[in-house]
Amino acid sequence: MFLPRAPLPVAVLGATGVVGQRFVARLARHPWFRVVALAASEGNVGKRYDEACAWRLAGDAYGPAWGGLGSQRLVRASPDAFEAALVFSALDTGPARELEPAFAAAGASVFSNASAFRMDADVPLLIPEVNADHVELVRVQQKRRGTRGAIVCNPNCTATVLTLALAPLARRFGLREVIVTSFQAVSGAGYPGVASLDVLGNVLPYIRNEEEKLVEEPRKLLGVLVGDALRPAEFALSAACYRVPVLDGHTLSVSVRLANAAKLDDVRAAFASFPSAIAELGLPSAPAVPLRLHDVEDRPQVRLDVESERGMQVHVGRVRECGVLDFKFTALGHNAERGAAGASVLDAELALAVGVLSP
Amino acid sequence: MFLPRAPLPVAVLGATGVVGQRFVARLARHPWFRVVALAASEGNVGKRYDEACAWRLAGDAYGPAWGGLGSQRLVRASPDAFEAALVFSALDTGPARELEPAFAAAGASVFSNASAFRMDADVPLLIPEVNADHVELVRVQQKRRGTRGAIVCNPNCTATVLTLALAPLARRFGLREVIVTSFQAVSGAGYPGVASLDVLGNVLPYIRNEEEKLVEEPRKLLGVLVGDALRPAEFALSAACYRVPVLDGHTLSVSVRLANAAKLDDVRAAFASFPSAIAELGLPSAPAVPLRLHDVEDRPQVRLDVESERGMQVHVGRVRECGVLDFKFTALGHNAERGAAGASVLDAELALAVGVLSP
Amino acid sequence: MFLPRAPLPVAVLGATGVVGQRFVARLARHPWFRVVALAASEGNVGKRYDEACAWRLAGDAYGPAWGGLGSQRLVRASPDAFEAALVFSALDTGPARELEPAFAAAGASVFSNASAFRMDADVPLLIPEVNADHVELVRVQQKRRGTRGAIVCNPNCTATVLTLALAPLARRFGLREVIVTSFQAVSGAGYPGVASLDVLGNVLPYIRNEEEKLVEEPRKLLGVLVGDALRPAEFALSAACYRVPVLDGHTLSVSVRLANAAKLDDVRAAFASFPSAIAELGLPSAPAVPLRLHDVEDRPQVRLDVESERGMQVHVGRVRECGVLDFKFTALGHNAERGAAGASVLDAELALAVGVLSP
Amino acid sequence: MFLPRAPLPVAVLGATGVVGQRFVARLARHPWFRVVALAASEGNVGKRYDEACAWRLAGDAYGPAWGGLGSQRLVRASPDAFEAALVFSALDTGPARELEPAFAAAGASVFSNASAFRMDADVPLLIPEVNADHVELVRVQQKRRGTRGAIVCNPNCTATVLTLALAPLARRFGLREVIVTSFQAVSGAGYPGVASLDVLGNVLPYIRNEEEKLVEEPRKLLGVLVGDALRPAEFALSAACYRVPVLDGHTLSVSVRLANAAKLDDVRAAFASFPSAIAELGLPSAPAVPLRLHDVEDRPQVRLDVESERGMQVHVGRVRECGVLDFKFTALGHNAERGAAGASVLDAELALAVGVLSP
Repeated sequence: MFLPRAPLPVAVLGATGVVGQRFVARLARHPWFRVVALAASEGNVGKRYDEACAWRLAGDAYGPAWGGLGSQRLVRASPDAFEAALVFSALDTGPARELEPAFAAAGASVFSNASAFRMDADVPLLIPEVNADHVELVRVQQKRRGTRGAIVCNPNCTATVLTLALAPLARRFGLREVIVTSFQAVSGAGYPGVASLDVLGNVLPYIRNEEEKLVEEPRKLLGVLVGDALRPAEFALSAACYRVPVLDGHTLSVSVRLANAAKLDDVRAAFASFPSAIAELGLPSAPAVPLRLHDVEDRPQVRLDVESERGMQVHVGRVRECGVLDFKFTALGHNAERGAAGASVLDAELALAVGVLSP
Repeated sequence: MFLPRAPLPVAVLGATGVVGQRFVARLARHPWFRVVALAASEGNVGKRYDEACAWRLAGDAYGPAWGGLGSQRLVRASPDAFEAALVFSALDTGPARELEPAFAAAGASVFSNASAFRMDADVPLLIPEVNADHVELVRVQQKRRGTRGAIVCNPNCTATVLTLALAPLARRFGLREVIVTSFQAVSGAGYPGVASLDVLGNVLPYIRNEEEKLVEEPRKLLGVLVGDALRPAEFALSAACYRVPVLDGHTLSVSVRLANAAKLDDVRAAFASFPSAIAELGLPSAPAVPLRLHDVEDRPQVRLDVESERGMQVHVGRVRECGVLDFKFTALGHNAERGAAGASVLDAELALAVGVLSP
Repeated sequence: MFLPRAPLPVAVLGATGVVGQRFVARLARHPWFRVVALAASEGNVGKRYDEACAWRLAGDAYGPAWGGLGSQRLVRASPDAFEAALVFSALDTGPARELEPAFAAAGASVFSNASAFRMDADVPLLIPEVNADHVELVRVQQKRRGTRGAIVCNPNCTATVLTLALAPLARRFGLREVIVTSFQAVSGAGYPGVASLDVLGNVLPYIRNEEEKLVEEPRKLLGVLVGDALRPAEFALSAACYRVPVLDGHTLSVSVRLANAAKLDDVRAAFASFPSAIAELGLPSAPAVPLRLHDVEDRPQVRLDVESERGMQVHVGRVRECGVLDFKFTALGHNAERGAAGASVLDAELALAVGVLSP
Repeated sequence: MFLPRAPLPVAVLGATGVVGQRFVARLARHPWFRVVALAASEGNVGKRYDEACAWRLAGDAYGPAWGGLGSQRLVRASPDAFEAALVFSALDTGPARELEPAFAAAGASVFSNASAFRMDADVPLLIPEVNADHVELVRVQQKRRGTRGAIVCNPNCTATVLTLALAPLARRFGLREVIVTSFQAVSGAGYPGVASLDVLGNVLPYIRNEEEKLVEEPRKLLGVLVGDALRPAEFALSAACYRVPVLDGHTLSVSVRLANAAKLDDVRAAFASFPSAIAELGLPSAPAVPLRLHDVEDRPQVRLDVESERGMQVHVGRVRECGVLDFKFTALGHNAERGAAGASVLDAELALAVGVLSP
């Protein structure tokens, strides 16, 4: 089991936002890491972290406010502003497109929640339990780009939950068609994000750019690495994304047609016994049970289930036959942990544990 | 245009509940009717209406509290307790199964929101704009059962919204497959109904008996009357029903495969120009535009759109191609008006206007 | 009763915001007015109204979307950009401070929802039912400032509800001390205003600048005009303002100590028979009953009561003795109608009806 | 520090309800106790705990579902049904009035969340950090009633939060007058409790029996034990209780007049340095900091703060001068933990640690 001799110096880009705060909460207490830099936008550089951002994680579950780093001064998001072996990026797409390659070129391993490079052919898009082997694309990327560092992405939050739920079926029966309708939490839009006037007592039938990501990312995630190239999985996917008045956690209503015939019991068994690709590695942020199958008819429920295993568990329930495709079910996961900060941290753990990155 | 010489005497069964109150609000101000009896369960008989029930319709939009009938005394729900030509039933399934036939046998025309008899072969299940001709089943029913009165049902609230949205496509292109996920309001469960502890900040993935109704009723509604028999429409339908923290109004995410090829513009045109089957009749509760097509990407929204045309309009938006079936869209309608009280009142207006029922 | 020979030309400043939209909805259907100009910030000038703003008023209750003026082009908020006898201002404080005097100087009557000039000695701060006579300050203002036009303000939304509820007690018994805690709706913060991440399932214990306004405005509103000067009412007031997850409508928990002894029944009677100062004038936007006393123990409730009389009625309930001061009660009113757009329109009606302003 | 040689056998009465589940969650993992009996109403006796009740505690924070005791069979709530040294009661008032004395008579130490006996002269009403010495009333009770066992009560949830916030002021300056308005969470009403139709997007201005408890209990809690009698604190208290759409956690808006003059800084210091009466005892459920003073202007917030110290911490913020009384502030605490289950468990720990009860 991987364990660094000394804590590795890490940095967070975009440390003041919704995802940035969750990065800090996780990294500040992480057994392998030491947070050496909290980077923020120009206006906040030089301020104390606790002055620049209102800490918004509830209660004690995510550790002390500001990860205990409230007195740390914010720095510029630039490779020459600090030394960090690993850089965690909670940047928006625009800044990410510019800054992440700069850090990679400077030798840092960049673990990014941004969408900027997710679909690049030489960038691993990871859900470790599903496609840990895709991390090998790091070497392809380094060779092709001539960088010592590299960029590793986690998928869109909704795509993460969907793909983890689809993976057992894809592995065992093959997928042919997937139709998904989402019930997405407001934290998925960041802060301030969704106006309360828009979402209180309401359902919003549109989330900009979301359906596009939800259609393309799962095919890459479930694809197969052939030599240096990733061959995407081939199945049809249709997505309809809605926003609902929920704080954290995306619920999905999914119907699937499988490539090979299956009985309902087989499908349930596939969910119940999904073999994590990283079970042996003992990664600190990996959930004990990445996919949990619920038997009672009214679960999973986002309010009751979303925080299980510190937000890293994905839930499946109400598995039953579909009158049009083959089967249908409900899936649920934490958009800001499993689908963002926790995902990137787990990616970093994987990359270190398998030795793709030498810190 | 039908207009009774004198207001017809009508009664409401289950007058104190969520749907009962909406019946009273509509009937108390209806140009054709006079409310002669408000019937309630045994424990409330003899009480004033305003003592027995907390009026829960907001503001002035639905008229004065208790429909202005607060001082009326509640009576037993029994044919010998009062004389009414028309009886509107907001009863639960159990009492409906017993009492509605008794009223029909006693000569009353029963317009029911209950599910007890909806799927009976000789009971018209009506959405007047869609299948006004099905009202002819009343004569079949009277002949077969030997009653002077009859039972006429409106469909389940979710089925109503779905069917109104599907009708233009069914008429013009034929339907082959439909997959629907619902976002249902709490008022659909009556009062007290859904506990706030269950639904605040939550999504509930299960509503008892709802998916079953949503699968079978649209086929009857879109069926064809052949002689005395109704031949249901033949298409596959798969439903997944969820409860969300919304007060009134069910939102639906729908994907369809059509029987005949169609272009996106044709589908939009079908929604935009849906010809109501009752446009000529001038019924007081009929919306001017029963189906409204939205062009902007973030509509319909339940909070903004559900009360249009006094809750009798159904909305369709985000019409686009589906990556698995042919097309997908969002539909929205008021569960307690279009899907309950308003529906039954409109059914009664239709029956009177076409002369199936002679008051 | 006042009735202009021809509709008077009016303009709305800040027409795209939450309050601006409500101004447009009211004015577009107003029997006295014709909307000749919708003014917006620089970036929106020249755009169609329906392109520049997402209409956010629900259902049909407030008339057609964009007041039916969707095709109108937005203009600059400048006296030389259009000709209007009356100007309704939904501007923020900063722009209001600059633009409102410019319009007044140019001869327009400015009815403002902004806080910029509310406490100026020569600016009438009006709740017509309470202090209609204060409108005479217009003449003082015109004389002092040498303008043909004038600025007339409506109070802060919370202050409006509180003052309307206090007025009957102030008139009949005199006020000595008032302690108020507010439960304020999110629409009071405009759009986008309060982030959903902040207020879903939450109570926010602080609203910037709100308590200050709530303490000073009621004293001016309940003051007495002595010659050209307004002598503020003298009573102590302590306010604590909270935000809750409610869309429209501020609820207040109020305790009062009266100047003169009163019995509970007298207090109730004072609320029940509050004599509006404008009852005789027949103003189009005046509610029939400006203050409604509720007897049942669980009313008023914001969701059920806030839209009564098109949002212009203030509600009082749970009147009872206070264990520390003399009496306590709950008050409720619509922040965006009674406390903003509706208020300014009513102010304008008053000014025209009493002839202070000659259009 | 107290530590039993072997885990003491404990029982939970009303184990299936909202508070009962929290008792089970706490006791199942408690270092001193072993849950030997889960008692429920007649209809559930004999059922497995996980069949009889839907577990409603979210995530992993409160341990495994059903406290890991899902397979345990429910028993009758009767002293002859099981042997337990300590009995924790989550009963409603009616059953509590009957059953709690029976258990005390049979020798059990009853720690009750019910209101039935709270105000009895010989029943300790405890907030250990505030009035630990009141536990001595157990001996008075045993002597007077001739029982081996005894009843010990925790106060009403709102009274608990208020009293913990008032205690530092009462101790240091004395209290003369208190006015409080509450923003209460729905879990305070149990399950199913408040209907979602009543509270979504709403503020309810009335909670039956709540204001009465909130007025009388703090005086007993802050009273002084003189010999065998408790002399209640003498100050005036006025309460207005409201329900808001919040799941867990009561927020209070409080104004106070002190008996002795104080400066704002002194008041803040009193809150910041409140000396817990049980700091030395090392009780497992005692929060490290029972009262936390917030300095930032927009805290405490129920969503962010209520779960701190596993729901056992009470928060105070926005301490400032009051324009009518002396000072005002916001207080916040967890109604179902600090105000119910956690409170009773802490009471039991106190009673055992000081030796009033010998197990």
